[in-house]
Amino acid sequence: MASFTPANPEFEARVRDSFARQRAMATIGARLASVRAGEVEIELAYREELTQQHRFIHGGIVGMLADNARGYAAFTLMPADASVVSVEYKVNFLAPAEGERLVARARVLRPGRTLIVAEAEVVAIKDGRETQVAACLATVMTLHGRDDGPRG
Amino acid sequence: MASFTPANPEFEARVRDSFARQRAMATIGARLASVRAGEVEIELAYREELTQQHRFIHGGIVGMLADNARGYAAFTLMPADASVVSVEYKVNFLAPAEGERLVARARVLRPGRTLIVAEAEVVAIKDGRETQVAACLATVMTLHGRDDGPRG
Amino acid sequence: MASFTPANPEFEARVRDSFARQRAMATIGARLASVRAGEVEIELAYREELTQQHRFIHGGIVGMLADNARGYAAFTLMPADASVVSVEYKVNFLAPAEGERLVARARVLRPGRTLIVAEAEVVAIKDGRETQVAACLATVMTLHGRDDGPRG
Amino acid sequence: MASFTPANPEFEARVRDSFARQRAMATIGARLASVRAGEVEIELAYREELTQQHRFIHGGIVGMLADNARGYAAFTLMPADASVVSVEYKVNFLAPAEGERLVARARVLRPGRTLIVAEAEVVAIKDGRETQVAACLATVMTLHGRDDGPRG
Repeated sequence: MASFTPANPEFEARVRDSFARQRAMATIGARLASVRAGEVEIELAYREELTQQHRFIHGGIVGMLADNARGYAAFTLMPADASVVSVEYKVNFLAPAEGERLVARARVLRPGRTLIVAEAEVVAIKDGRETQVAACLATVMTLHGRDDGPRG
Repeated sequence: MASFTPANPEFEARVRDSFARQRAMATIGARLASVRAGEVEIELAYREELTQQHRFIHGGIVGMLADNARGYAAFTLMPADASVVSVEYKVNFLAPAEGERLVARARVLRPGRTLIVAEAEVVAIKDGRETQVAACLATVMTLHGRDDGPRG
Repeated sequence: MASFTPANPEFEARVRDSFARQRAMATIGARLASVRAGEVEIELAYREELTQQHRFIHGGIVGMLADNARGYAAFTLMPADASVVSVEYKVNFLAPAEGERLVARARVLRPGRTLIVAEAEVVAIKDGRETQVAACLATVMTLHGRDDGPRG
Repeated sequence: MASFTPANPEFEARVRDSFARQRAMATIGARLASVRAGEVEIELAYREELTQQHRFIHGGIVGMLADNARGYAAFTLMPADASVVSVEYKVNFLAPAEGERLVARARVLRPGRTLIVAEAEVVAIKDGRETQVAACLATVMTLHGRDDGPRG
């Protein structure tokens, strides 16, 4: 597994600050669990408001957690004057998202100057036992010289 | 463009009923705009609670709308005793999701007995002008002999 | 459907020259059938040397045609001093690649300065009848200031 | 990492026999390097006939190796009366495919009865040093009761 040297030593504070400004994460109740260079974990406790018709967490929520964890895993390696944008992502669902909570774990596979390839897995934890519910592969882009604050 | 003969003439009622049981759609404020054989549209009005750090609708929400529209586009063609599950999806982001509302439009590309391939686009509407914000390609599975109600 | 203004009026000659230098295309017997701004078609006649174990054209060959058509569809819109690189692609197989020939048709969905999103379909033609065998969605990158010739 | 119990103890012979009938693999010069339950490696020595315009191995060939390795990794877990079909795959390119040879390594992530999710990496080996050139995520389908021989 690769180890990374972040361009910005303040990367954790920067990721936490950006995450805190994502209203969508507060709305679904997601929490930034850990931030390391090239690796981010996001957790979500089960909530009935996030379910699909079979009472499992909606697959779109699973994809959203994975997308966000990957974006921030990439962001940890970006310079202080850059912002992050999702180019594309792909999710395979392996099992229903059933359990007390979900954890999305993302890590950077290859940090290019402009494009960063990252992967993520999402696991569901039920009675202390983990089941992988999704596997994801994605491309994230560094926008150099663009602040991470609100646009426009 | 293909035209489809649905196996279940009551497909629209069935899709609307299933959508209504998806708590996650109510939570984000999404609305089933249209249901035709092999085609579904879901709309979402802009809400600050769904934004990312630049105040655009979160990409994960965009992916979620597309995923759901595709799942239900596939569901329109399934027999009355089947339920639907997302196998995988892929989203490319084309532009920030900026505007008064988003529309996810999905259509079935190929309806197999077990697997259905579907595509979706998500557009943002701002001052009456549409911009495509995402393109999606996905696989949906028919679970024959499985009710669409809550599991377990 | 979008219409594009290519940055380089000589785009067709440039695509044809680059394609001619792809030894892999000659090896599999593929032919550049048409080149328009933002759109490229590649054809391949059925050859037993390209089959998988069921005597259909190998899925990897189908993916390769689609990947290449998309790359060149994007290349038609690039300036004269840029070269093209595939970032990622996704293929869904809709039917076995059975017939006298395959045609991969690609078109640009969104031409960004750095990243270009393109889609492709691959059809098999059998007894004059077309069947779509694959749907593809991909990201292509423009390398500004990089010649299209051999590296190193 | 998961360990798998194959349904057919003769899985290696079956995979080798099927691979040997893939004319496309002989055409590109690929070799089945290893076959274990849920894991397959395919190797390819560099050949100028497989290059793109920059003299690297064509990205479509890289995708083809990964697709095939994944298909056979899944096939190792299938019962003796089943055949294998690629549903979809996604490839991210991490670096140019430059070196003396490529190795595609695939492993099953989740073996379902009908659908098998598998991942693959492709590495290029140059002067004894490995560089990952592609990451892949795919869905493979088991066709129960379908022989692996040529289709009629």
